[in-house]
Amino acid sequence: MNGLFITFEGPDGSGKTTQIQQLANTLIKQGYDVITTREPGGTRISDLLRNILLSTEYQEMKDQTEVLLYAASRSQHVHEVIVPALQQNKIVLCDRYIDASMAYQSVGLGIAKKTIKEINHFASSGLQPKRTYMMDVSVKESKNRLSQRTNKKGEIILDRIEQKAHDYHKKVREGFLQIAKENPDRVYLINANQPIDVISEEILEDMTKLLANRMSS
Amino acid sequence: MNGLFITFEGPDGSGKTTQIQQLANTLIKQGYDVITTREPGGTRISDLLRNILLSTEYQEMKDQTEVLLYAASRSQHVHEVIVPALQQNKIVLCDRYIDASMAYQSVGLGIAKKTIKEINHFASSGLQPKRTYMMDVSVKESKNRLSQRTNKKGEIILDRIEQKAHDYHKKVREGFLQIAKENPDRVYLINANQPIDVISEEILEDMTKLLANRMSS
Repeated sequence: MNGLFITFEGPDGSGKTTQIQQLANTLIKQGYDVITTREPGGTRISDLLRNILLSTEYQEMKDQTEVLLYAASRSQHVHEVIVPALQQNKIVLCDRYIDASMAYQSVGLGIAKKTIKEINHFASSGLQPKRTYMMDVSVKESKNRLSQRTNKKGEIILDRIEQKAHDYHKKVREGFLQIAKENPDRVYLINANQPIDVISEEILEDMTKLLANRMSS
Repeated sequence: MNGLFITFEGPDGSGKTTQIQQLANTLIKQGYDVITTREPGGTRISDLLRNILLSTEYQEMKDQTEVLLYAASRSQHVHEVIVPALQQNKIVLCDRYIDASMAYQSVGLGIAKKTIKEINHFASSGLQPKRTYMMDVSVKESKNRLSQRTNKKGEIILDRIEQKAHDYHKKVREGFLQIAKENPDRVYLINANQPIDVISEEILEDMTKLLANRMSS
């Protein structure tokens, strides 16, 4: 596989979607073959699972069910979309991946790290991103940004995960920072409080190096 | 937990549903508090997953996704339905459980036994049935019986799993027989070619002993 698998991680409201779109546009202009995708979702089956996972309708969902559904959605996404794209030498920019499960489910829900690792290793056949851009913002700032996402009636719309308590989201942020610390070669930690263009610049600079190394290797 | 957890295993068309219904009726007449349930399914979330798993619409489903979705459905079912019923001292008669995943996914699809075991241990928090009635019929006979399940137009209706090839179903049967051999204390192997009433009698006799032991223990 000669493609390049890149993930974006961080809490909701940290600006991942914006940065992925900007990076994709720039790389496409430079002539690269790029696809953008997201988890949970990204395939027909995974999108059905996304709806079940994020709907505020299913509050009875058990933590173990949540872990397994994220992994099922990921399994289908990896094998149906990501791996075939990498085999066609594409750059895959993916919004969330296994680090999100580690932060949200292991650190956030308190399920053993080893379990989350093993289940997701099985789901992904061990596929790891070459680079992960981890967008870090305070829980307060991420909440502020989410509260600006309103529907036509001006009501704030949060999904089942976003609705969870402040303490949970604090633990999730700590989980992300821990992952960055433990994987310095793969994870690029970004201060997501900076202006959008400053962040885009930072990511593009790193990606340019990554692509140069790939050409020469 | 003072309830009694009983599972029925065997291929489609082996007569599980009929036997569960007969046993439930008899036990209820004897004054026991009984619930009957089935996998995949048995809860709101699990029924959504059942539809995705069995629909002939999703032929693109990867083997890993199938394993994880069965486990997710089971996790929700165990923690939302089975465990609470056992805590209320009920007898739970369940159509399919972890043995089915071992036979269909490990032996049938060729996924490592250890993986299926670990994922399902996590999904079920280690809950094991006290007794498993394993209905054994030849693949030919099970196919014959399934071919009699037709819709209003007289067309045979098979789900995505039932549609799989003869060789797959042969391996699944071997998988079930192997489980029976490896778990002689838990699994009661039944020749499901016998008349319905003969089988019901056999199951009731064993259940009566099991209930007597439970009272005296």
